Amino acid sequence: MTMDDAAENLPSSVLDILQWDENGLIPVIAQEAGTGRVLMLAWMNHAALQRSAREGVAVYWSRSRQRLWKKGEESGHVQRIRAMRVDCDGDALLLLVEQQGGIACHTGRESCFFRELAGEGWQCIDPILKDPKDIYGPKP
Amino acid sequence: MTMDDAAENLPSSVLDILQWDENGLIPVIAQEAGTGRVLMLAWMNHAALQRSAREGVAVYWSRSRQRLWKKGEESGHVQRIRAMRVDCDGDALLLLVEQQGGIACHTGRESCFFRELAGEGWQCIDPILKDPKDIYGPKP
Repeated sequence: MTMDDAAENLPSSVLDILQWDENGLIPVIAQEAGTGRVLMLAWMNHAALQRSAREGVAVYWSRSRQRLWKKGEESGHVQRIRAMRVDCDGDALLLLVEQQGGIACHTGRESCFFRELAGEGWQCIDPILKDPKDIYGPKP
Repeated sequence: MTMDDAAENLPSSVLDILQWDENGLIPVIAQEAGTGRVLMLAWMNHAALQRSAREGVAVYWSRSRQRLWKKGEESGHVQRIRAMRVDCDGDALLLLVEQQGGIACHTGRESCFFRELAGEGWQCIDPILKDPKDIYGPKP
């Protein structure tokens, strides 16, 4: 489905199975629908989930900034939601998304999971596709 | 890499970037290496991560049972770790695994994410590949 099918306000039939953690959050995996690449793990609260469903793009709860965060609000790297899935326990969500710009990570890489364990350390396995300075502008 | 490359005890060069939550846990996404299907989201504490690295199979921390849980210890549905990745913030892990038996979910399905949002509710999108009674035996 596309999120266009989703009711503007998610009904209890959708919400009742969800298990929110002690902070009122649920972990959300974002996976690129086209390639299957896992892009990132983020968090939603109830408001973020409702906005995501209503707008059809990923809106997360930023734990560092303690506010709703529309993915791509600064970078333009919006995640269009193609499908939303829930796990057997109702305590994790999976979004199949179209990653605008092909870049999910603030480092300018496709995926936030760009380091792989190799023996004694983490090895970077992905190229920087766009300099963060060109994504967000120079730091003040 | 395969986890055979990993040191028996993960060195500080591997551990230092990891951000454990207030419960000493880190969320772990398990993805089938062959198909790219996201299988489940689970949690590791430090001991679970060390055992996973040492044994080359996924060992999680069961929050419900409050103990280390070798995935497949009852069902035989072990997850052989083909790669371990960490995200940009160091607060999530991604395992690329070979899911033994092709079943990750305790419901007998390939993936724990077998329900997809469709309008007013969740729709089951995956078949039961094996009756849980035949996986775990009848409930006493």
